[in-house]
Amino acid sequence: MKKIIVAGATGSMGQQAVKLIENQSDCELVAVLAPNMASNSNFKQAVKCYKSLRDINNLTADIWIDFTTPAAVFENTKFAIEHQIRPLIGTSGLTTEQITQLQKKAQEQKIGGLIAPNFGLSAVLLMKFAQEAARYFPDAEVIEMHHADKLDAPSATAIATARLIAANQEQAIDQNSSNESRARGENYAGIPVHSVRLPGYVAHEQVLFGGLGEALTLRQDSFDRSSFMSGVKLALEHIMELPELVVGLEKIL
Amino acid sequence: MKKIIVAGATGSMGQQAVKLIENQSDCELVAVLAPNMASNSNFKQAVKCYKSLRDINNLTADIWIDFTTPAAVFENTKFAIEHQIRPLIGTSGLTTEQITQLQKKAQEQKIGGLIAPNFGLSAVLLMKFAQEAARYFPDAEVIEMHHADKLDAPSATAIATARLIAANQEQAIDQNSSNESRARGENYAGIPVHSVRLPGYVAHEQVLFGGLGEALTLRQDSFDRSSFMSGVKLALEHIMELPELVVGLEKIL
Amino acid sequence: MKKIIVAGATGSMGQQAVKLIENQSDCELVAVLAPNMASNSNFKQAVKCYKSLRDINNLTADIWIDFTTPAAVFENTKFAIEHQIRPLIGTSGLTTEQITQLQKKAQEQKIGGLIAPNFGLSAVLLMKFAQEAARYFPDAEVIEMHHADKLDAPSATAIATARLIAANQEQAIDQNSSNESRARGENYAGIPVHSVRLPGYVAHEQVLFGGLGEALTLRQDSFDRSSFMSGVKLALEHIMELPELVVGLEKIL
Amino acid sequence: MKKIIVAGATGSMGQQAVKLIENQSDCELVAVLAPNMASNSNFKQAVKCYKSLRDINNLTADIWIDFTTPAAVFENTKFAIEHQIRPLIGTSGLTTEQITQLQKKAQEQKIGGLIAPNFGLSAVLLMKFAQEAARYFPDAEVIEMHHADKLDAPSATAIATARLIAANQEQAIDQNSSNESRARGENYAGIPVHSVRLPGYVAHEQVLFGGLGEALTLRQDSFDRSSFMSGVKLALEHIMELPELVVGLEKIL
Repeated sequence: MKKIIVAGATGSMGQQAVKLIENQSDCELVAVLAPNMASNSNFKQAVKCYKSLRDINNLTADIWIDFTTPAAVFENTKFAIEHQIRPLIGTSGLTTEQITQLQKKAQEQKIGGLIAPNFGLSAVLLMKFAQEAARYFPDAEVIEMHHADKLDAPSATAIATARLIAANQEQAIDQNSSNESRARGENYAGIPVHSVRLPGYVAHEQVLFGGLGEALTLRQDSFDRSSFMSGVKLALEHIMELPELVVGLEKIL
Repeated sequence: MKKIIVAGATGSMGQQAVKLIENQSDCELVAVLAPNMASNSNFKQAVKCYKSLRDINNLTADIWIDFTTPAAVFENTKFAIEHQIRPLIGTSGLTTEQITQLQKKAQEQKIGGLIAPNFGLSAVLLMKFAQEAARYFPDAEVIEMHHADKLDAPSATAIATARLIAANQEQAIDQNSSNESRARGENYAGIPVHSVRLPGYVAHEQVLFGGLGEALTLRQDSFDRSSFMSGVKLALEHIMELPELVVGLEKIL
Repeated sequence: MKKIIVAGATGSMGQQAVKLIENQSDCELVAVLAPNMASNSNFKQAVKCYKSLRDINNLTADIWIDFTTPAAVFENTKFAIEHQIRPLIGTSGLTTEQITQLQKKAQEQKIGGLIAPNFGLSAVLLMKFAQEAARYFPDAEVIEMHHADKLDAPSATAIATARLIAANQEQAIDQNSSNESRARGENYAGIPVHSVRLPGYVAHEQVLFGGLGEALTLRQDSFDRSSFMSGVKLALEHIMELPELVVGLEKIL
Repeated sequence: MKKIIVAGATGSMGQQAVKLIENQSDCELVAVLAPNMASNSNFKQAVKCYKSLRDINNLTADIWIDFTTPAAVFENTKFAIEHQIRPLIGTSGLTTEQITQLQKKAQEQKIGGLIAPNFGLSAVLLMKFAQEAARYFPDAEVIEMHHADKLDAPSATAIATARLIAANQEQAIDQNSSNESRARGENYAGIPVHSVRLPGYVAHEQVLFGGLGEALTLRQDSFDRSSFMSGVKLALEHIMELPELVVGLEKIL
């Protein structure tokens, strides 16, 4: 039985994580951490409810699921590692430097874990396949489509995808970007990235590959954030075997 | 029986036009114009073969199909109108000014005709539908995809599509384009246009509309230029009824 | 100012309709009908709350919006027409016979209205465009994709789309369906219809047209039912001008 | 320098293979086999031209490329193996039994080779990715789209894809196919397969995966048969290292 604490248990992702755990026969929710927990939160009596890190003592847990805030995630993860609780981090905002620090600490503590900026299985598989296809189809472009309210463009996932493709091209494509139309998109490591922002859309990404007389297209659609839970479930199944603190759900695919 | 002359009969489009006419029971090829005609061109004996405009005399024809060159098309069309032959022009390169001049001459000669920059039915319908959808879905983006050798971006059709959409929006969309990423595409009248250039691709265009909780997508694919002949066939069916010289295949849809 | 009563005001669609009306400057919610209204429903004080048809008296309203049940919709619509309230019916379940009866009554009462089985603008436009494209591309197939829980296949909208296409083909396509694989779909009036049922999907429909060397594809995606409100808004804008009781949102596009 | 014989060198695929070899700096065309070779076939003088298997003697070659006919391919492949020439077979029509026989002979002769029913890289990658995705998304459907003249449905590749997906599902999906509409497609090992047949289309395949709140779509388009040469090129690069006679281009990806 895997004993689990959920940090950020009252947020929208945290609530879904709690529900997920309750449906896994080999998982047990032993504690939650949520600063602004309402008095009427109806967790089972056996579940310990903490309002801050400092309140936690005598906690025995195997896995620390974190869906909190960029401000809290570093201290939380450090705390988990130091207390021999394997971190399963879905909160974004960790800097490269912080991640290196946490990985070092995990190594010292001889404990594994997972930091996953994106728990969407379809997005993670898309990146994996794009990387692989790039070896055979060096010519690729990325189109991501999001709701009109998304402020940044391109999306972090699209940029990451472009970089992965570029890194796996057998030969670099020479995209001369000088005096080109903006219609040709933003160039990341030689891969044009296009961003569509329209109401109604949720979160979607396409990678288009073209070769002599043929084309290959990979597409993923995230219709709602419930999709993240498939990735969390997969992570729960494999986290106990991870020998170190890894970054990216694709590491366990 | 519609008597037809094909100018540019030895070019790839001209050859297809000749074949098309031979398959129409109500059409008859009476002459061809082709400067560099090989001696062994096997047109039927009854077909008059001209090498230049100056050679043409005593020609009785109803329709002048033109698939020649930007350098020749204006003089050809003028000649046709002056000789009471209805022009059906597939050659690109006429300037706005030349078109106005030709339309005036057609009016004087009381003759109709058609100048069609794009004879692809799917492309023309896409533009027509996009225009109509814009009244209900003001938020739209255009993505066109072409083979890697296409030098210009975006395609003329994509720009035309964006302008049609913008003209039919009930209210203009305020796209603030300042300090935006190039990933957001080139802005035409408020409509972002994205251009993909990949080997293998032929000529494709998509229009994406988004609204509250829903999306509408129009897409056309041109796999090869034989597709133009459906448009030429349609034009042949309607050209005798046109009261003036119109521009755009959509005018007869 | 259009005075409006919403029947089924406590259901999910009805609630959205109420919200929509409150955001229209030329509309006023004057009454609601909802059998199982909670005592704490917070409608404005001026709004009359009825629990059954029999409770309604002295009501002055212009438009009757109905998102109730198949069991209630006929009596409601009849009541509305008899009381000179224009029906705007989003409830499904009316039989062809009932609709004929209601249209006759509306004629007697010299009142117009709208029965719309589908208020999704993208779906309605898709059907309209498909119908139009069928005149130029007689070869078409329909693919609809829905969540895995949808029991019936194909969807009513897909069947309606196929019939519209068939009715607009200049010549019928001879699809010999004998001893064909089930992979070729269900044949409706010569148009193959394919149904995909997968978890994650919501409600999507595609129409594929193919012609010599080219293809045209129409696609609509309904991501959630909030999309219906764009159609209701459009209906509200035009319903006062309708001279009779019409069926289908496309009638006012 | 790899010495190569092309069997079926005058067919459309064979001609492309010859051209490909001429463009590879590490390959040399040493012979061709073509029963109906025209006297004016302009192969280089050094290339030996055979009209039948019996004519071949004293041939030193490393690779036997075969784009012949179902009637000839088995004898050809056997001959190649027996003469220590590695077979690279693009001809379809070998039965399972014949393949087993050839693999046994290759083992005896201690020689490797490749039988590839499909040399399209995009199709092969699609199958590979579909297989992998099935482990995470057990719910899948296949849609293939071909030109209207294709007689069989579904395509062999689509059936193969469905079987690969089924073989990789962690748990079988229980598709109850009784009294279901034909719109739900043909069921292969639990995976519905849909076939679209439309003029204009060439050869296209999609795999749709759905999971909680998300979807993953893989699509490949073959616009013309020139696409096969990318696969042949890849095979040429790896065939000398193959320890046995393998089936499927994916074995060397």
